[in-house]
Amino acid sequence: MNKKVVTLGEMLLRLSTNNNNRFITSKSFDIHFGGAEINVGVNLANLGLNSYVITKVPNNDIGTASVNYLKSHGVYTDYVKTGSERLGIYFLEQGTSLRNSKVIYDRADSAFCNIDIDELDIDEILENTDLFHVSGITLTLSEKTFELSKLILQKCKEKNITTSFDFNYRSKLWTLQEAKEKIVEILPYVDIAFAGYLDFINILGFKTDATNLMDTYKDLYPKVAEKYNFKYIVSSMRDVISASKNNYKCILFHNDNIYESKQYQIDIVDRVGSGDAFTSGFLYSFLTSDDNNYRIQFAAASAAIKHTIVGDANLTTKEEIENLFNSDSFEIGR
Amino acid sequence: MNKKVVTLGEMLLRLSTNNNNRFITSKSFDIHFGGAEINVGVNLANLGLNSYVITKVPNNDIGTASVNYLKSHGVYTDYVKTGSERLGIYFLEQGTSLRNSKVIYDRADSAFCNIDIDELDIDEILENTDLFHVSGITLTLSEKTFELSKLILQKCKEKNITTSFDFNYRSKLWTLQEAKEKIVEILPYVDIAFAGYLDFINILGFKTDATNLMDTYKDLYPKVAEKYNFKYIVSSMRDVISASKNNYKCILFHNDNIYESKQYQIDIVDRVGSGDAFTSGFLYSFLTSDDNNYRIQFAAASAAIKHTIVGDANLTTKEEIENLFNSDSFEIGR
Amino acid sequence: MNKKVVTLGEMLLRLSTNNNNRFITSKSFDIHFGGAEINVGVNLANLGLNSYVITKVPNNDIGTASVNYLKSHGVYTDYVKTGSERLGIYFLEQGTSLRNSKVIYDRADSAFCNIDIDELDIDEILENTDLFHVSGITLTLSEKTFELSKLILQKCKEKNITTSFDFNYRSKLWTLQEAKEKIVEILPYVDIAFAGYLDFINILGFKTDATNLMDTYKDLYPKVAEKYNFKYIVSSMRDVISASKNNYKCILFHNDNIYESKQYQIDIVDRVGSGDAFTSGFLYSFLTSDDNNYRIQFAAASAAIKHTIVGDANLTTKEEIENLFNSDSFEIGR
Amino acid sequence: MNKKVVTLGEMLLRLSTNNNNRFITSKSFDIHFGGAEINVGVNLANLGLNSYVITKVPNNDIGTASVNYLKSHGVYTDYVKTGSERLGIYFLEQGTSLRNSKVIYDRADSAFCNIDIDELDIDEILENTDLFHVSGITLTLSEKTFELSKLILQKCKEKNITTSFDFNYRSKLWTLQEAKEKIVEILPYVDIAFAGYLDFINILGFKTDATNLMDTYKDLYPKVAEKYNFKYIVSSMRDVISASKNNYKCILFHNDNIYESKQYQIDIVDRVGSGDAFTSGFLYSFLTSDDNNYRIQFAAASAAIKHTIVGDANLTTKEEIENLFNSDSFEIGR
Amino acid sequence: MNKKVVTLGEMLLRLSTNNNNRFITSKSFDIHFGGAEINVGVNLANLGLNSYVITKVPNNDIGTASVNYLKSHGVYTDYVKTGSERLGIYFLEQGTSLRNSKVIYDRADSAFCNIDIDELDIDEILENTDLFHVSGITLTLSEKTFELSKLILQKCKEKNITTSFDFNYRSKLWTLQEAKEKIVEILPYVDIAFAGYLDFINILGFKTDATNLMDTYKDLYPKVAEKYNFKYIVSSMRDVISASKNNYKCILFHNDNIYESKQYQIDIVDRVGSGDAFTSGFLYSFLTSDDNNYRIQFAAASAAIKHTIVGDANLTTKEEIENLFNSDSFEIGR
Amino acid sequence: MNKKVVTLGEMLLRLSTNNNNRFITSKSFDIHFGGAEINVGVNLANLGLNSYVITKVPNNDIGTASVNYLKSHGVYTDYVKTGSERLGIYFLEQGTSLRNSKVIYDRADSAFCNIDIDELDIDEILENTDLFHVSGITLTLSEKTFELSKLILQKCKEKNITTSFDFNYRSKLWTLQEAKEKIVEILPYVDIAFAGYLDFINILGFKTDATNLMDTYKDLYPKVAEKYNFKYIVSSMRDVISASKNNYKCILFHNDNIYESKQYQIDIVDRVGSGDAFTSGFLYSFLTSDDNNYRIQFAAASAAIKHTIVGDANLTTKEEIENLFNSDSFEIGR
Repeated sequence: MNKKVVTLGEMLLRLSTNNNNRFITSKSFDIHFGGAEINVGVNLANLGLNSYVITKVPNNDIGTASVNYLKSHGVYTDYVKTGSERLGIYFLEQGTSLRNSKVIYDRADSAFCNIDIDELDIDEILENTDLFHVSGITLTLSEKTFELSKLILQKCKEKNITTSFDFNYRSKLWTLQEAKEKIVEILPYVDIAFAGYLDFINILGFKTDATNLMDTYKDLYPKVAEKYNFKYIVSSMRDVISASKNNYKCILFHNDNIYESKQYQIDIVDRVGSGDAFTSGFLYSFLTSDDNNYRIQFAAASAAIKHTIVGDANLTTKEEIENLFNSDSFEIGR
Repeated sequence: MNKKVVTLGEMLLRLSTNNNNRFITSKSFDIHFGGAEINVGVNLANLGLNSYVITKVPNNDIGTASVNYLKSHGVYTDYVKTGSERLGIYFLEQGTSLRNSKVIYDRADSAFCNIDIDELDIDEILENTDLFHVSGITLTLSEKTFELSKLILQKCKEKNITTSFDFNYRSKLWTLQEAKEKIVEILPYVDIAFAGYLDFINILGFKTDATNLMDTYKDLYPKVAEKYNFKYIVSSMRDVISASKNNYKCILFHNDNIYESKQYQIDIVDRVGSGDAFTSGFLYSFLTSDDNNYRIQFAAASAAIKHTIVGDANLTTKEEIENLFNSDSFEIGR
Repeated sequence: MNKKVVTLGEMLLRLSTNNNNRFITSKSFDIHFGGAEINVGVNLANLGLNSYVITKVPNNDIGTASVNYLKSHGVYTDYVKTGSERLGIYFLEQGTSLRNSKVIYDRADSAFCNIDIDELDIDEILENTDLFHVSGITLTLSEKTFELSKLILQKCKEKNITTSFDFNYRSKLWTLQEAKEKIVEILPYVDIAFAGYLDFINILGFKTDATNLMDTYKDLYPKVAEKYNFKYIVSSMRDVISASKNNYKCILFHNDNIYESKQYQIDIVDRVGSGDAFTSGFLYSFLTSDDNNYRIQFAAASAAIKHTIVGDANLTTKEEIENLFNSDSFEIGR
Repeated sequence: MNKKVVTLGEMLLRLSTNNNNRFITSKSFDIHFGGAEINVGVNLANLGLNSYVITKVPNNDIGTASVNYLKSHGVYTDYVKTGSERLGIYFLEQGTSLRNSKVIYDRADSAFCNIDIDELDIDEILENTDLFHVSGITLTLSEKTFELSKLILQKCKEKNITTSFDFNYRSKLWTLQEAKEKIVEILPYVDIAFAGYLDFINILGFKTDATNLMDTYKDLYPKVAEKYNFKYIVSSMRDVISASKNNYKCILFHNDNIYESKQYQIDIVDRVGSGDAFTSGFLYSFLTSDDNNYRIQFAAASAAIKHTIVGDANLTTKEEIENLFNSDSFEIGR
Repeated sequence: MNKKVVTLGEMLLRLSTNNNNRFITSKSFDIHFGGAEINVGVNLANLGLNSYVITKVPNNDIGTASVNYLKSHGVYTDYVKTGSERLGIYFLEQGTSLRNSKVIYDRADSAFCNIDIDELDIDEILENTDLFHVSGITLTLSEKTFELSKLILQKCKEKNITTSFDFNYRSKLWTLQEAKEKIVEILPYVDIAFAGYLDFINILGFKTDATNLMDTYKDLYPKVAEKYNFKYIVSSMRDVISASKNNYKCILFHNDNIYESKQYQIDIVDRVGSGDAFTSGFLYSFLTSDDNNYRIQFAAASAAIKHTIVGDANLTTKEEIENLFNSDSFEIGR
Repeated sequence: MNKKVVTLGEMLLRLSTNNNNRFITSKSFDIHFGGAEINVGVNLANLGLNSYVITKVPNNDIGTASVNYLKSHGVYTDYVKTGSERLGIYFLEQGTSLRNSKVIYDRADSAFCNIDIDELDIDEILENTDLFHVSGITLTLSEKTFELSKLILQKCKEKNITTSFDFNYRSKLWTLQEAKEKIVEILPYVDIAFAGYLDFINILGFKTDATNLMDTYKDLYPKVAEKYNFKYIVSSMRDVISASKNNYKCILFHNDNIYESKQYQIDIVDRVGSGDAFTSGFLYSFLTSDDNNYRIQFAAASAAIKHTIVGDANLTTKEEIENLFNSDSFEIGR
């Protein structure tokens, strides 16, 4: 039977420059919709799971357009609330070559920030749910979204529903100290953690003497997993050659083993959402396969191919993802 | 010597649909900048006056783009402050034929709402100023912008600088009662009032038994002018045939005389900013001519031609405006 | 409780010229999806009914895009089959002023033409169904689609489900004689007939001596309704001023009474689908109101506003439709 | 056998604004090719005649693009010379409603201005030629183009080839006095004259006491035809309602008879080239029919439909033109 | 004297995504025309040969547009037939980086598939013809196109006209077995064969023990050439780094000698038609030069530069091609 | 206090192809404004200096648009004259990968070529000026622009204003011999010379036996600097991998020392104006810093980032430039 996944997060209107224009030379913005957990939800629906997102959008045509976007990719919108005044916005100037991308957030006081626990029947939402996912961004948006996140995670624990958390630390949204306080509070309810080793060091305060990347994983991840009782830690490694060229690979830690994906050299069309494609890639393979090697290969290839797709969502297929990691081409060093 | 004009108002980012798309079918938004008093300032600079706007924009690339827009049309940006977080936005779905335009405001807590009187040296600003203009929109945005408007109007009165006020009532921004309270407070400092007769009835509480438009003017305007000591009342009359076809004319009340413009039948390209083009048209002709017939013809033709120009500003020339009202064509009933 | 409606018809890929280009000057085609019954289904979902379409699309990305389109507007796609080779196409050159629109069909042997009765569980489909709709186009596409249409209509009759049929005669698809043979076969199962009086004369062979339009209705419609046992006959009247300007009104015949809508003068953005917007407008008001005057006003305003909306579907709201017929503006002769 | 027509004129690169932009708001120009006699040549090829143009373009990719344009519509390019430095340019800002179109010429010293008589073998060119056409624009561009025009006209006279001349007076290119001097010199070699009655008065110095349009024709045209020995005089009458709405009709004078076309009310997409479509419409019908009523109807309908087609050329078909004047619709007053 | 070349093949309407969109995110398709032998014909006309294509297009505006395309690049359209119902279509999603291109064919029952031998006067067509070219695609489209291909090839043999055949094997169009049966039947009439060594192994059943590429050529090509009496075998070698980066070189086998081109590293704009640019590059240099080194360099550079040009045709010049292979830059390993 | 810089040069209208189109496939041109010294002026204003350009544009809307462009980026337009007939044009076909860019100049007899010394009050212009910049292009456009350049340079020398000259040799504009004659005449008045070592050899006739690049600098630059009394020689080195990939670095010679920048590997979006971004980068850092290492790093990073920005101007910020050369990324060989 098809798995049910629920994500909780802010729907954002993305307004991005086009044709290599900068913000100050643009005469039009391309319209996309996104948001970390929204992207995960869309990607999972696109891959065929029963995907529900909990969010809130204003009761106007911008809000309606964002809901139509969800529907068009098969996301179930039963838990999408309407009300409040505005949809959060982020402006994106796509970088290229030596010029970095720029993001301007205009998301304060969005409809989602004002979502009330009372608007939702959480027990009904979690009925038959196989997995719940949320990221650090939702923790930081408002007190309401933090409390809601925590409550759902706790209920999942009670109901034995797998929980997934992506640290998703953004210095534009909170300080390391603020992040630590909030994140530590919810980690006890997390089964699968998406994070980089620097998150463990900078946010959670772990230390290591390891001098290379693999040793760092081997040293750090068992300690982290033990302390927070994570069943899986999943990390991506990005080597930035330029704004339009990255090398990319992923690793998975589970039961004291580390599983590595292939590494990809990527010419980037749109990097935004590649982290969420990594997350959704892992969650999909986690829910449909028991093979940790397959899972991490799927996660990495899912993220890699996202870089070639315009918009926040990973509008690809299971076949394209599998072909990518099964193919001989594209791997660095072949 | 060239006249100096100062306007005070909010800079808005306009995001408008294109190619007859609706909000829910749009894949891109066209970028324009506008705002009632901004438009008046741009139009006057475009016609050759020394035009300054007082406003505030965030210190990011969206703010910079808006300032570049002002500069490109020759507006002096010495009184443009930077700071706070966001530029106000309005989303515009252009209507056509039987389908009306739609506007969604997302302008709460904009940089301009947070402008402080301390940021400005008003005495210096008003030095050599010939005319100051503000509209009802600025009165309603925040307590700060109301107080600033009032203070500048008072100072103008002291310094014998002509003041101009456009009622510009928008039911989306405030109620009639709120409007009345704020507007009445500043009317004593106003020389030139841009308003419709319905504003006098609905907001200021005047009454009339007149049964046609011209009688209404003749009955109402002398009473209004007397009570508030207006030197000029300037009104436009719009007859809406459809969202893309309007009839349009203007009248001027001065010293108990009423001056009428020609009436135009207009196929509309972009109606937004036509009211500001009417205002700027009158202010330009007021500052450059003593002929009331010329002034109201110029105001009406300025507004009429604006409907054919994309964006908020009236990017036309004095010659085009004069040719329009001097030409035999285009008048209804010729 | 929300009403369930089922329509049966071909999904078409529409490739239309833009920016007033002709076919021979076009460098790109805009992509839309449509088809008579598809449009009715999308319009009804957009207005909030539980709308299902029965159709078949190829198992490729063009087919997937068409299904995503249905989903985005809330159509339930449970009865959309995949298979066969191709999606039917129609090329559209939008006319304007003195230049007429042009349509080139390339829909032979489409996936829908090859739909098999065995692919569908018709009893399950009709469970809880309130209304079934099909048009003459589906009758003509293939023997399979004709037989399927007839079977469903018969089952509806047995199950007491209201049936709706739009004659939708297209001389490019079949001759009057072919139309007559097929249509007469299914008319016994039809409750609501959408047709013009010329359809009754040319296809069904009725005659009248009436010399004006209203007399024609009064003479002809009772005879037609009696012979075929129609509960409702709904007709639209279009007066073509030019390719971009039409006058439009509708009438409803029910229980020997004729109900008339307002007449609209329309500047046309996209006329395609206005007939389907008329149909869906009537069906929506039929299912949600008992007032025949409201129903025909809703149908006409629904069709009228469609002419201003790009694409095949009537992406408007109940409020916009009601505002249009309740407003004083826009009616001819006001 | 298919008729051979030769025209002589300048190829121009047209750079036009789009989406209702003005010159000062444009970020791109649409590319078209045109020129009075070029348009006539393209239109005649498009209608199926053997059409040759004599012109000269620079030996660069802009020149090549212009030649490909000719070829794409079936014009024979055997007499297109290459050399010199630049292609003439005209910038076009499309007007709409109350706002007039603007044209900026940048055509000085173009390749065509520098065409040498020696580059051409005129006797070979005129072999089997049925009609030669040139307009006043070519007379004014340079001494070389004037001399070439005159020489070819003279040779036509000797060879009994029908000649056609369009006055095409443009005040931006020459004064009335300059026009008179040049035009009078070539009129003796002209069989068919395209001109308005004002050309006869202002340029040729004719006078009339007639007080309405038809009387003017009846008084003036016999005198003009007699003096210059014109076989046909063909005139169009344009009533400008606005920049986007014109009324239009044509008349033909031949053997002391006046033939009138229907009058059309036109919503304008692109007015440029409508005069050339009038000319080519007449020349086509002149060469393929003996019926003066058909000829003038064809000329007028050809011009009328051109207003709905983007670009300089009249990319329509004989069928569309005939349908237009045979249809009941579209005529004013129906 | 200019050489006359005739090709036989299907004209296709190409509808391709733009701006990195996928099929399911596209709102418009770019319009191009192509088809293997059409491309060869256009490329040769563009290089200056007298190029004729034999094809058939429907008698509608899509067909007309495709013929105008041929004319615009100087192809002679005397042998283009009109009739039947539809132009074949292929949808193209351009890949990039890790994401491969996708092609969806919708070409069944196209006008060209229905071309009749009786529609053509083959003897007249072949008069003065220097070379005839066809590819495997034409063999597979229909029985009619196969028989026509074979007949013309046979007639060429009789008339001593050089024949050229490109294997062009596409697994979407036929199986290896089907290909073998048809191809073997026409090989006796072929002088120049464009194929890869895998075609010889997989389709023709040759075998080799060679373990590297060059040995394979040396072993295989003499055997193939001998068996089928080929005068020239021309092959390209493509090394796919990613969907947007390929390495490319070509080899020529003639009289037991192998000639190699430079190898190019290519950043790809549009790969479609690069094989046809290779073919046309060789055929052009074959017909205009005797130097085998020049020929294969010209073929390879022609194909290489095609990858940078949008659309199916190789719209470059002889000079650009020669500059590319004469330049020091661009070669791998410099 | 902010530094005042004056540049002298031609304003050009740039018409460039888009979406990888070639000239012969383009349907629109993107509009930009540029010109060597114009670009330097815009870049310096954009970085915050008081930047004035001396130029002349026609008194039409194309001219106005070009002046608005200057204003929008903060350039002072007090010394921009209007008059004469035309703005110079250059057509740009952007190259990519193996296909080179193409430029077609159409700038003969531009308004700037006709600028008169009498139109300018040079003493007033040079008041408070810190630096004057001109390039070889202005020397070659007309006798008038040469004389004007020379006069201003001489006046600068008298007034002790720093002068900067960019050789900017373009073989399309003059021969080496012509360049030499003009350039040598003005070199005595130059303080800062932007040139490559090949300019010194080919134009000024210097010789060297050095066999590598660094030795060439060491040998040649002291001799050149001594002979012409240059205070600074600034050179860029470009290694062309393909039309879309270049390696780039710069060196500075001052007081017998050579300072080198980092080398960048650049994926090119728009190479035009990168030389002017190099010049403006150096001039900005020269006027705001005393550190030669900082100056040459700033110049190189300014040029490098320009390659990623569409249009002629370097619309970046001081922070982005500094971040680029301070960052570890992007340098070749890291």
